[in-house]
Amino acid sequence: MSEPDPLRAAALVDLLALLAYGELQAFDQMAADARLAPDLRRRAVLSEMAAVEIVNFRRLDARLEALGVDAEAAMRPFEPALRDYHDQTEPKDWLEALTKAYVGDGIADDFYREAALCLDSPDRELILDVLHDSRYADFAAQEIRDAIATDPKLANRLSMWARRLVGEGLSQAQRVAVERPALTALIVGAAEEQDGIAALFRRLTSAHTTRMAVVGLNN
Amino acid sequence: MSEPDPLRAAALVDLLALLAYGELQAFDQMAADARLAPDLRRRAVLSEMAAVEIVNFRRLDARLEALGVDAEAAMRPFEPALRDYHDQTEPKDWLEALTKAYVGDGIADDFYREAALCLDSPDRELILDVLHDSRYADFAAQEIRDAIATDPKLANRLSMWARRLVGEGLSQAQRVAVERPALTALIVGAAEEQDGIAALFRRLTSAHTTRMAVVGLNN
Repeated sequence: MSEPDPLRAAALVDLLALLAYGELQAFDQMAADARLAPDLRRRAVLSEMAAVEIVNFRRLDARLEALGVDAEAAMRPFEPALRDYHDQTEPKDWLEALTKAYVGDGIADDFYREAALCLDSPDRELILDVLHDSRYADFAAQEIRDAIATDPKLANRLSMWARRLVGEGLSQAQRVAVERPALTALIVGAAEEQDGIAALFRRLTSAHTTRMAVVGLNN
Repeated sequence: MSEPDPLRAAALVDLLALLAYGELQAFDQMAADARLAPDLRRRAVLSEMAAVEIVNFRRLDARLEALGVDAEAAMRPFEPALRDYHDQTEPKDWLEALTKAYVGDGIADDFYREAALCLDSPDRELILDVLHDSRYADFAAQEIRDAIATDPKLANRLSMWARRLVGEGLSQAQRVAVERPALTALIVGAAEEQDGIAALFRRLTSAHTTRMAVVGLNN
């Protein structure tokens, strides 16, 4: 058996806690955003998207407990960054809310998927499993596409909104990277073993660009 | 086979729609209330309670669709009463939120349970099944009891709050009773076949009084 690596263990707890707290915060934001829905059917869909986050939160929380970790203490360091991200990107209407869910969760999921590949079982599978169901991304994408088809001027406003989401997301991610060196070391180390951190950023950027183009937004 | 009774069919749709919209509205309120939690663990529990409402909403919504009903149109008549109830009873802190979940949902569940007994299968079982899990009532009760044990003066404030919840709930229930005569006829008719509407009110009141006493609140 290999010796337990304390840095690696700390990074695992950080990643589970970051994702868990992210789910809790996303639940809160999406539940609030559901009020912006133009009708009951759409409101129900966004409420359901929110509810799924809580199911995922519970699974991650249970895993932290199983690791003997105080889940609340593990999540606390990530509170300021996630709160600031959501405070700075409060959607003003239904389409901003959907664009946030589509663009923001899309990038976050891609990042978590890359990070999960640095982990061993069962954490790797757990994280891949709780990442967002594409059903909801599909719903958001369809809504955005339909809205732009009806009113092409929307594309400009929502593209600017998406750029703001990315900017705020990156600045909070940077803050987390500085504050949680073990987590950063895990991800950078794994990237260097593969094709480098620059390649990781290129993959994330390219997936984001494709996601934007698919719904008619400009990067 | 007995002839289909249009009044009874309308009452069934009303009851399913009222309960479905109530779940959606309760989700919204509890998700917002979770922000009042004093710590992450408690916030997570209330968020989970909220998420359960959405699962129930989906089941009721699916049943309405299966009956060939436009669920959104069926729910719309109940929007003003439920919105006004929640607007008039916006909790100011964590304990008011829990008391609302405990007292308000308790009475509502008792009422729906009585109403469900007027229905045939599978609607009777569906409604009994989506009524609130006692796990969450137990959590709320324990929190209220603990808070009163620590600070006995709280009992007075929360008792007054509970009376306001009941008052506002009754006034909105009255409005629904007047606006939806088929639903009212179903419930009153079934009560009259049993031991009368006065007995129904006595049962609801007595269960409420017990619920209050159990957590140290005065009726």
